[in-house]
Amino acid sequence: MAETKKDSGAKSELVKMGKKIVEDIKHGKSPKIELSVRGLSNVVYDKESKTLGLGEKTAERLFFNVGHAKKFLQTIEIASICKTLLDVAKHASLRDVFYMAKRTIPSTNINVVDEQKESDKAIEDLELITSYSRENLNVNANKMGSVAGKVVVEDSGDTIDWSKLGSGGWSIPSNVENIKFKKVNAKYVIYMEKAAVWERLHEDRFWEKQNCIIMSSQGQTTRGIRRLLQRLCTEHKLPIYVLADNDPWGWYIYSVLKFGSISLAHMAEEMAIPSVKFIGITCDDVINYDLKRHFIKLNDQDISRLKQMQNYDWFTKNKAWQRQFKMMKDFGAKVEIQSLSSKGISFISEKYLPDKVRKQDWLD
Amino acid sequence: MAETKKDSGAKSELVKMGKKIVEDIKHGKSPKIELSVRGLSNVVYDKESKTLGLGEKTAERLFFNVGHAKKFLQTIEIASICKTLLDVAKHASLRDVFYMAKRTIPSTNINVVDEQKESDKAIEDLELITSYSRENLNVNANKMGSVAGKVVVEDSGDTIDWSKLGSGGWSIPSNVENIKFKKVNAKYVIYMEKAAVWERLHEDRFWEKQNCIIMSSQGQTTRGIRRLLQRLCTEHKLPIYVLADNDPWGWYIYSVLKFGSISLAHMAEEMAIPSVKFIGITCDDVINYDLKRHFIKLNDQDISRLKQMQNYDWFTKNKAWQRQFKMMKDFGAKVEIQSLSSKGISFISEKYLPDKVRKQDWLD
Repeated sequence: MAETKKDSGAKSELVKMGKKIVEDIKHGKSPKIELSVRGLSNVVYDKESKTLGLGEKTAERLFFNVGHAKKFLQTIEIASICKTLLDVAKHASLRDVFYMAKRTIPSTNINVVDEQKESDKAIEDLELITSYSRENLNVNANKMGSVAGKVVVEDSGDTIDWSKLGSGGWSIPSNVENIKFKKVNAKYVIYMEKAAVWERLHEDRFWEKQNCIIMSSQGQTTRGIRRLLQRLCTEHKLPIYVLADNDPWGWYIYSVLKFGSISLAHMAEEMAIPSVKFIGITCDDVINYDLKRHFIKLNDQDISRLKQMQNYDWFTKNKAWQRQFKMMKDFGAKVEIQSLSSKGISFISEKYLPDKVRKQDWLD
Repeated sequence: MAETKKDSGAKSELVKMGKKIVEDIKHGKSPKIELSVRGLSNVVYDKESKTLGLGEKTAERLFFNVGHAKKFLQTIEIASICKTLLDVAKHASLRDVFYMAKRTIPSTNINVVDEQKESDKAIEDLELITSYSRENLNVNANKMGSVAGKVVVEDSGDTIDWSKLGSGGWSIPSNVENIKFKKVNAKYVIYMEKAAVWERLHEDRFWEKQNCIIMSSQGQTTRGIRRLLQRLCTEHKLPIYVLADNDPWGWYIYSVLKFGSISLAHMAEEMAIPSVKFIGITCDDVINYDLKRHFIKLNDQDISRLKQMQNYDWFTKNKAWQRQFKMMKDFGAKVEIQSLSSKGISFISEKYLPDKVRKQDWLD
């Protein structure tokens, strides 16, 4: 794969960091790395951008400090691995990077890294130091999810038409930074957490009838999916609608997509999508579509997650969401998206979603 | 989607079953359904076909039997739902079918089904009664996984070239029964459990250099993947190689693919692939490729799974596998496939796999 602008940008940041350390050494100074403090104490909700981000606290990592030396070494080692990946234009997973870094420091019995969380942390540090995401450092996240719609992309030398991929759709790569959009003919994107719902909409050719893009994961929203949604939103001005279960976990998926999460606060700009809307299932849907008979009782984890969300900075003054939280608490129950199938196999694609979109009936 | 031969076959089996019950009623007999007994007591390992299957025990399910009546009703209800799905040529997930069946029996307060496992069991019963898999009854499993290679398929009216889908690959549908293979240019298939390994091989264009097909899931081997592998093996005579961690779970994935599993014993013919080979990671690989320094200690679950496999009928007389089991037990440790990355980012695609394939160094 040819080197892109972002590749060379990330690489030059790594080189800059290395050169600075060499300078420190040449001048007889203790080599140091400066970076923002991660962690709850420095995570702030920015009311203007409406995303979670890092505050202004910074920390120094010194080579000549017993408490810092190993982390310092790990950061440099991982930086070197990323530089190599960029040089040879290859990508590695987090696990690969761990194994690439895992070696014994010569004439000691100490390993550079013993556990993956050490190399993971070092990669997060490099994201902060270079201002490039780990995808730009050629380190990939998990691969998951499918997409369909009237979109043509160019990727790794191939031209791929998302509308002509049979019942399977395009398998979303873990890294979507180098994808080029050649044609985007869609009015909006629906992202759903469940692959089975995606298959329902796809079989009904929902994307063709509604002129939209349908995208799903299976479980977690991977970074590849988040970035793909974000690129469609920012580069092509498409509204993104989240379709999830009527339960605290489905709502949490929405919250993370829209506002970001504590663990990704340092990457909010690349990852959060403040304009995302929640299209359903809402507690009003439960009433309007007569889904109460499919109630599943909230368990303790559900209730505690619900309370947590009620108290999130970004939800406390949001009346519409506070109303939803209260309704679910009063119901004492949640409802799955597939319960709509009780009204007919294609109810979701022929009635529920078209109505919601037409009435602009979503939560912000 | 047009009706296929299998669709009409499955449908006529459902109709036959319904007609038989109507006949029973007309003749004043207690309506009954006959089917093979599922469960461990009737699961046998067939040494000839080398797969797990059901024995000859059958059972009757009677409508006029307090213990049978509800199950009888559930079977008929789910049969009717499958018939409808086939009539309208649409597919549903197991969860959808549950919600479609979940309704209160008129003038009672009893639900046809209360939990998904009831409708799931009814679908398994229908697989036995009709001799068609639930995919043929238009009930889909989970969707997961990606594939790449020099293969062209026709699916849902689209022609899809697995070699021209960028870094993502084709997203494998949950149901692959209706896929038509138009061109298959490959010498073998490598199936791996980890999507990150698939991305490594794909970025290195392993399938092109080695003239093979690469397929992955993320975690479980879904029924869609199993059937796709089986079709490539039986219809195109391609050897299938499993690439998994050197641990009891990776080996179990191989065991299930090759011999089938207890829960799928009634579907062995459609699901098991007796010719599958295990290409690695073996305990010999651990030694030959100097991977001992990446040992991860076996935990209690690992050890008990290992013992279980040692005693499986289909492994007890297999000297090569018994040797592996013993080696891992002696190591007291397992090794992950990504540990090969410690030898270089593309070591797996440039050295490890080509060597293994050339030397035909696999376990049967």
